[in-house]
Amino acid sequence: MEVALREIAGQLGGELLGDGERRIARIATLEGATPDAIAFLANPKYRAQLATTQAGCVIVGPAVRDEAAARGAAIVTPDPYLYYARLTQWWARRMRPAPAVGIHPSAVVDPSAQIAPDAVIGPLCVVGAGACIGAGTRLASRVTVGEGCSIGARGIVHSGVVIGADGFGFAPVKAEGGLRYEKIEQLGAVRIGDDVEIGANTCIDRGALDDTVIEDGVKLDNLIQIGHNVRIGAHSAMAGCVGIAGSAVIGKRCTVGGGAIVLGHLSLADDVHISAASVVMRSIRQPGQYSGVFPIDDNSAWEKNAATLRQLHTLRDRIRALEKNDTPGQS
Amino acid sequence: MEVALREIAGQLGGELLGDGERRIARIATLEGATPDAIAFLANPKYRAQLATTQAGCVIVGPAVRDEAAARGAAIVTPDPYLYYARLTQWWARRMRPAPAVGIHPSAVVDPSAQIAPDAVIGPLCVVGAGACIGAGTRLASRVTVGEGCSIGARGIVHSGVVIGADGFGFAPVKAEGGLRYEKIEQLGAVRIGDDVEIGANTCIDRGALDDTVIEDGVKLDNLIQIGHNVRIGAHSAMAGCVGIAGSAVIGKRCTVGGGAIVLGHLSLADDVHISAASVVMRSIRQPGQYSGVFPIDDNSAWEKNAATLRQLHTLRDRIRALEKNDTPGQS
Amino acid sequence: MEVALREIAGQLGGELLGDGERRIARIATLEGATPDAIAFLANPKYRAQLATTQAGCVIVGPAVRDEAAARGAAIVTPDPYLYYARLTQWWARRMRPAPAVGIHPSAVVDPSAQIAPDAVIGPLCVVGAGACIGAGTRLASRVTVGEGCSIGARGIVHSGVVIGADGFGFAPVKAEGGLRYEKIEQLGAVRIGDDVEIGANTCIDRGALDDTVIEDGVKLDNLIQIGHNVRIGAHSAMAGCVGIAGSAVIGKRCTVGGGAIVLGHLSLADDVHISAASVVMRSIRQPGQYSGVFPIDDNSAWEKNAATLRQLHTLRDRIRALEKNDTPGQS
Repeated sequence: MEVALREIAGQLGGELLGDGERRIARIATLEGATPDAIAFLANPKYRAQLATTQAGCVIVGPAVRDEAAARGAAIVTPDPYLYYARLTQWWARRMRPAPAVGIHPSAVVDPSAQIAPDAVIGPLCVVGAGACIGAGTRLASRVTVGEGCSIGARGIVHSGVVIGADGFGFAPVKAEGGLRYEKIEQLGAVRIGDDVEIGANTCIDRGALDDTVIEDGVKLDNLIQIGHNVRIGAHSAMAGCVGIAGSAVIGKRCTVGGGAIVLGHLSLADDVHISAASVVMRSIRQPGQYSGVFPIDDNSAWEKNAATLRQLHTLRDRIRALEKNDTPGQS
Repeated sequence: MEVALREIAGQLGGELLGDGERRIARIATLEGATPDAIAFLANPKYRAQLATTQAGCVIVGPAVRDEAAARGAAIVTPDPYLYYARLTQWWARRMRPAPAVGIHPSAVVDPSAQIAPDAVIGPLCVVGAGACIGAGTRLASRVTVGEGCSIGARGIVHSGVVIGADGFGFAPVKAEGGLRYEKIEQLGAVRIGDDVEIGANTCIDRGALDDTVIEDGVKLDNLIQIGHNVRIGAHSAMAGCVGIAGSAVIGKRCTVGGGAIVLGHLSLADDVHISAASVVMRSIRQPGQYSGVFPIDDNSAWEKNAATLRQLHTLRDRIRALEKNDTPGQS
Repeated sequence: MEVALREIAGQLGGELLGDGERRIARIATLEGATPDAIAFLANPKYRAQLATTQAGCVIVGPAVRDEAAARGAAIVTPDPYLYYARLTQWWARRMRPAPAVGIHPSAVVDPSAQIAPDAVIGPLCVVGAGACIGAGTRLASRVTVGEGCSIGARGIVHSGVVIGADGFGFAPVKAEGGLRYEKIEQLGAVRIGDDVEIGANTCIDRGALDDTVIEDGVKLDNLIQIGHNVRIGAHSAMAGCVGIAGSAVIGKRCTVGGGAIVLGHLSLADDVHISAASVVMRSIRQPGQYSGVFPIDDNSAWEKNAATLRQLHTLRDRIRALEKNDTPGQS
């Protein structure tokens, strides 16, 4: 596939500088671009690459207009990263056939499920009784949507996702031998808003009594666990391997880094950002960035520091004792 | 669906106080209950909600019998949480059709597999040669049970589970370029007891030589990894995203919190409880609660503390030096 | 199945000591071996078990030749662990029927996919348009290989794996309410080398612009997340529940322990070893072992140390103040 620059700007807008007939065969990073590629400068820290990139055209913001024009063809736009996103979308539509609308013959869809006419139910998906798949939503392949669960419009659900498995709920019962668990049937469902994307093999459990709720515009990466009765606020995003335990409430526009864990029944305010691999053990009421990760080190340094960490409370007491002796009136 | 209170007490027992003809349309929490709901008070810390709940009936223990009776209908029972569990089970049986017994036509079941006549093999499951599925056990959808693996009676296996993939075993071999791995074929299987529940997309690997064993009554949440030759003792429970490395032995009635990791070849005694996101790096011989998580903080505070942590061992030495100078005989 | 020792040594080599007619019915560990078993001594720390094992034959290195011969039948070989690996392979070939070559009738394979004639595409797999599966490679069951993705020769892909779901890429857009995300279409693919094994329910995302690359001989365990545009060097191995964020570059012959996280855009040199559950937050340029895990402790000790950890930076300042007062010239 090859297009003229003129065609890109005609479709996506922006101010085109330089030769509009130039042929573009691919989209690339500044660093990896060849003369037949279009690249973009979104992060100011890569600005120096403008001088060295081989790209046939660069997408830039107004601030570097002159610099970009001096080196060749360019598209100037207020938000180059958004322009790049739209360019990938336009490119994908040209490069790949649209997935066939409708239900793949290998999918197992309950007759009582409601599938929007322009939804895509991919190969080997399972859609349970009374489930509801909204307009333009696509289940990739091997997705399970359980009984009574719903997904809004324009959603993308990647392969292996399980929506609506039972939440993890049991009543401990004293028994001979000490204990056994009695199952609490999970009577709620999962309700997912519009424009939600869910990564491969991610799981969202159904609620115990009320529903688990994923609001509009939420983006979940792969291998994420969302427990029963969690609520995730609109336009929040979570990276891979995150776990959100039952009944946690995540605000709007939050981000959760990869591998982070949020314990059950906690609340995160809107605009809270959790760093990767951090563990949220108390509710967070103020927007901001929060972290909690043991710094990595070479193994022998770590061993020493970790051993000392197990005596940290004692060390504090020893500092206190020293301070007491150090006080002028006492020494 | 709507039932009379009298009917609930008739089925599940307990002492019914107040109007037995009262109609109940749903089960709810005390906080979320409406007048057509039945709610329960299991945790004493919610006792104050008895005064404010809208619930048409409350399930309570004998200690709050009078308080509950004063506000309206109630069911008094020694263990309200267990009563609630059984109520959800009875409710689910009335509300949902039982899953069809037998093998779904889309499932791929080896002719040599033994499937109990009342087991449920859901859509798009795969059951390998010589595998064995016990009485009343249900594989939800898209479950794989590998060759020679067995599940006992009354099990529930949620969608996407993989039982009996190869354990992770390789012999490192010196090769040109430095190293390559030679596969160790995994000749064991997976043996799962009765009354085991396994959450969505969880994986339990087959053993290398002997079997991986999950004893009776174990409850595993979603996205858990159980390595080869692990043994999990009866009535232990693990929350989502846990990883148990190969040959670890977990005692009976243990709990492992979400995202925790247990390293390989370790043992946990019976009744050991591991907090969420903790990493078990040594065997634990005594029952009790164990934790190890870096506390989360606002990012700038964390950065300072994490940087200092890398010098902790040195700080200890500096405290020692101060203490030496501080000794009466030395100053 | 039962074989004569003579037959094993005939197939796999090594110096056979003792009765070659001895019948062997299984492979076992030294500790678990019965007289009809063959066991191996690879790790010197188990050497004492030579004296107590019931094994009918032991596989040992030259250093313990005499000791082994004194107790009964033995096979002497330079690398007993490698011999054991090959023995399991030979055993598996005899014990299990080879999986049927070709495409299982329940699999959904795009007509434009290229499947090597001797590849195995298991039940309920999905292979997309233009994907390529190399010679002798086996997809177990319920594996998805997305459009345009390729796997080399002799690969093993376990059940539930998703190769080529979209990477997690979005451009944040200011919108009413604060923010929404615009999808960046993922135009790259996944390219996997020869002799790669991928564990159950692991996910490898397609690249944004260029491809995600897994080089020859890489071994990935279960439930691993590999982000878009990651590159994993040849003969690296990763244990379960690892997460490698987008654009990270992992060197050759690295190992990553279970549950470890590598943040995006970082590089690990060749021969870097990351301990289980550690979080890599900066690039690592030197070979070696690296760790970063909060040590587990009984819960009350942890609580005290964790609370103090949040004041660690302040403690350092207090030590400094003490040291200042402690200086001879100042006191």
